[in-house]
This record gives sequence, structure tokens and C-alpha cells, in this order.
Amino acid sequence: MKTAEMMETYPAEINLDRELLAKVVDALAACSQACTACADACLSEDMVADLRKCIRSNLDCADICDVTGRVLSRHTGYDANLTRAQLQACAQACKSCGDQCDEHAGHHEHCRVCAEACRACEQACQELLATIS
Amino acid sequence: MKTAEMMETYPAEINLDRELLAKVVDALAACSQACTACADACLSEDMVADLRKCIRSNLDCADICDVTGRVLSRHTGYDANLTRAQLQACAQACKSCGDQCDEHAGHHEHCRVCAEACRACEQACQELLATIS
Amino acid sequence: MKTAEMMETYPAEINLDRELLAKVVDALAACSQACTACADACLSEDMVADLRKCIRSNLDCADICDVTGRVLSRHTGYDANLTRAQLQACAQACKSCGDQCDEHAGHHEHCRVCAEACRACEQACQELLATIS
Amino acid sequence: MKTAEMMETYPAEINLDRELLAKVVDALAACSQACTACADACLSEDMVADLRKCIRSNLDCADICDVTGRVLSRHTGYDANLTRAQLQACAQACKSCGDQCDEHAGHHEHCRVCAEACRACEQACQELLATIS
Repeated sequence: MKTAEMMETYPAEINLDRELLAKVVDALAACSQACTACADACLSEDMVADLRKCIRSNLDCADICDVTGRVLSRHTGYDANLTRAQLQACAQACKSCGDQCDEHAGHHEHCRVCAEACRACEQACQELLATIS
Repeated sequence: MKTAEMMETYPAEINLDRELLAKVVDALAACSQACTACADACLSEDMVADLRKCIRSNLDCADICDVTGRVLSRHTGYDANLTRAQLQACAQACKSCGDQCDEHAGHHEHCRVCAEACRACEQACQELLATIS
Repeated sequence: MKTAEMMETYPAEINLDRELLAKVVDALAACSQACTACADACLSEDMVADLRKCIRSNLDCADICDVTGRVLSRHTGYDANLTRAQLQACAQACKSCGDQCDEHAGHHEHCRVCAEACRACEQACQELLATIS
Repeated sequence: MKTAEMMETYPAEINLDRELLAKVVDALAACSQACTACADACLSEDMVADLRKCIRSNLDCADICDVTGRVLSRHTGYDANLTRAQLQACAQACKSCGDQCDEHAGHHEHCRVCAEACRACEQACQELLATIS
């Protein structure tokens, strides 16, 4: 990821802390990829029928992390209300998905690794939310 | 769109009203497409420099409507907290983008049509939000 | 969808036929939604274990139709090579997903409706491809 | 990114080389983020009117890299025809966007960094394509 490097090249002011922003964008990309991969790995498990809710959470979380990463990669015409609302939705998605994956972390390595990505991402979103007035 | 028809084929219970859900999903698809097209039309205007904030709002709104439509198209393992949070972010995106496009509606037909799509979508999201306890 | 209306407001020339373009964009939106819904409906079926490949095709097709619809909604700086390549990938995704859904169309209404959306979308993509030199 | 770690946890066979796959998925995520950021940075430049085509290429490339990364993160029900077609479209998107950004690399650091991400991603896609029979 060239997130921090790209952030440095933005030609105008950025309303949020660039270092923290880059960290959150990277956590979102990692979480989105892990969730897409975890949904697919769950789909290949013998016990797929027990993993329906987990797969659904994975799909939502992947989609929402992707979009939140895009919103945070844009700085032109910053809109605090939108950034805040999307970050709140994303923190919720990461929490829901992390909870689901944690339930299966003992049986499925992909759920264990994915839960870690979700927790890290939820934490990063909350850190950034705390700086948005 | 085959949204309502697909909704009828879902093999289990759906926690929200199917007719309203289908209406919101369709409004989201229409708004997302309008916003993508409006961003591109703004980009081709002579006065593109005056439309920067509008383009940015368009891009965010297109992304957020897309993802919200996906979340609402899934019913397995329904999560009211996630649905509510994403709908709130989406209503905010539609409001912000509708406000931006309205400012240029007198000069640019694409902004006028897009503002209509944003208003209809914001209204649909609010209607659905009112039914989520 | 306000696709045709938005297409009319584009302030410059469009290299492809506007009516056909709007038809394809609408078919892509319908197919993407149907595929997202079909993946979720498959996930809720008792026999989900028999639908793994179908779910995966649905997820790919939804993603690819979404993105292809975005590419076709943009006209600024038209790039025939890119449009052609993305349309070819999309036609392939619709074909693969339509084939998968057709196999289950007798047992699952969502697969039957989704296969229709995939076939219509594949056909629309091929029609547009035939006009790109 | 936990791409390689997630790849290791997939519970069945993967038809392509896991190490190469993970490298490509990471290059796609980096390129998608760089393109989203570059589009936004271009939008904030004084000379935005000269960067229209670059912005459009950035938007397409971001969308296409995102979706290609998702397709490559799924292994269940592998479909060589679809993977190949989407990779070809993506290599084209990276080439087009890299060419655009290269034209402005002397004036805009974001275009220079983004062009690097596009070249690396195009190269990674071509490497993977060469292994798909």
C-alpha cells in the first residue's frame, strides 16, 4: 500500500491527521480483503451450513470497509457529517463480523485471522472517530 | 430491476417489509448510477473547477448507495444495528450530494436530475429507517 | 433508474449509442442486484452445500456487473480498449453465473429469476461489444 | 494486509500459485487506493481542467482493481475463463491509467506515485496471466 505516500502528495489541506488517516485506510483494506477471503473459505468448509451468518457478516463487512476506505482517501470538499456516519457504520460492521468470526475462531483458522483484522479495523475506526468533532 | 421479484423468492423470513425494501434498493441503484454519471458529466463541464465539491459528493454517494443496496439485498443473519447504521450514513450521503447538486441545478441538467435521485433516495432510506426498531 | 435521462444530459459527445448504452447499464444494475440477492438466498437454502459454486459465481458476477456499469456510465476520456476488455469480462461473468443458476433453476426460484437477469445482461453486453470497433 | 496469511487458511486446493496470488491481490489493493487518492488529488489541483482524462482513468482503474482483487481472493468454484478475462481487463486499466499518470508525473507527485502503483499492478497481473492456461 502506498497510502501514506499518496497522502503526502495531496495538494491542499487535510482536515484529519494524515498519519492516522493512512493507518485507518490500510486497516480497512486489510479487513476488506480478509473478509472476502473468509467468506470464500467458509463457503468451502464441510460445515458451511453452520457458517451462514458468518458469511453474510463477512460480505457486508468487506463491502463497507471498501467504501469507507474510499471515503477516507478523498479530502476535497471534506464533509465531517458524512465521514462520521460512514465510520460509525463501518465500526459496527467490523464489530458484528469480528463477533461472528470469533465464535468460529477455535475451529477455523480463517475465522481467527479475519477476526483479528476486524478488531484492528474497528479499533482504528474508533480512534479516527474520536478526532472528528 | 428484478428486485421485488427476487425478494419474493427468498426462502426464509425477512425482518423488514419486502415491498418497502425493494423500493429502497431500487432507489439506491438509481441514485448510485445518477451520481456516477453526474460526477463524469461535471468533469466534462467547462467550469469543472467550480464543481470539485459536487464531484466529490457524487463519488461518495455513488459508493455508499451501492454498498447500502447490497446490505439491503441480503437477509440471512439480519443485523438491525448494522442495517440502521449503514442506512443513516447513506441518508447523510444522499442529503450532502443532493444539497451540492441543487446548488448547480439551474446551470447543469445533470445536477438537476441527480439531485432528484438523491432526494428520492434519502426519503426512501428515511422511510425504511423509521421501521427499524 | 434515471440512466437514459442522465445520459441525455452529458455535456459532450458520447462515442457509443446512448440508447444502447443506457439499456446495458440498466441490465447490469438489474443483474448485479439479482446476483447479490441470489447468493444470499442460496446461503439460506437447506442444501447450501450444493450451491457453493453458484454462490461464488453470484458474488463475482455482482461485483463485475457493478463495475462494468460504472465504466459505461463514464464518457469523459473514452478508452475503447478498456471498455471492450471490461465488457468481455462481464459477458463471461454473466455466462458463467447464468450457467450455474440454470442448473438449479428447477429447484430454486431465485436461481431461475437470476439466470434470466444474467442471460439478459450477457446479451446486452454482447450487443454493445458488437458496436465497439 | 493479511492476504498471504488468509490464503494459507483456505481449506481446499487453490488452482493458482498462492504466493503469486497474494502478491497480485496486494498490488491490486495498493493500486486501487492510489488511484482513488490520485483522482481526488487531481480534483484539487488548480489545473483540474487539464486532468479530466487522468481523473476518469483513475476512477475506472480503482473500480476495476477492487473487483479483480475480490475475484482473486475467492477460490471456491474456480473459473479460469472468468479469472483470465477479468485480469486482462485489469491489466488494460492499469496500463491506461499508468500512461495517463505518467504524462503528469513531472508536475504532480500524486501522478508519479500513482503511475508506479499502476505499473507494478499491471506487471503483477501479467505475471499471473502467464500462469493461467
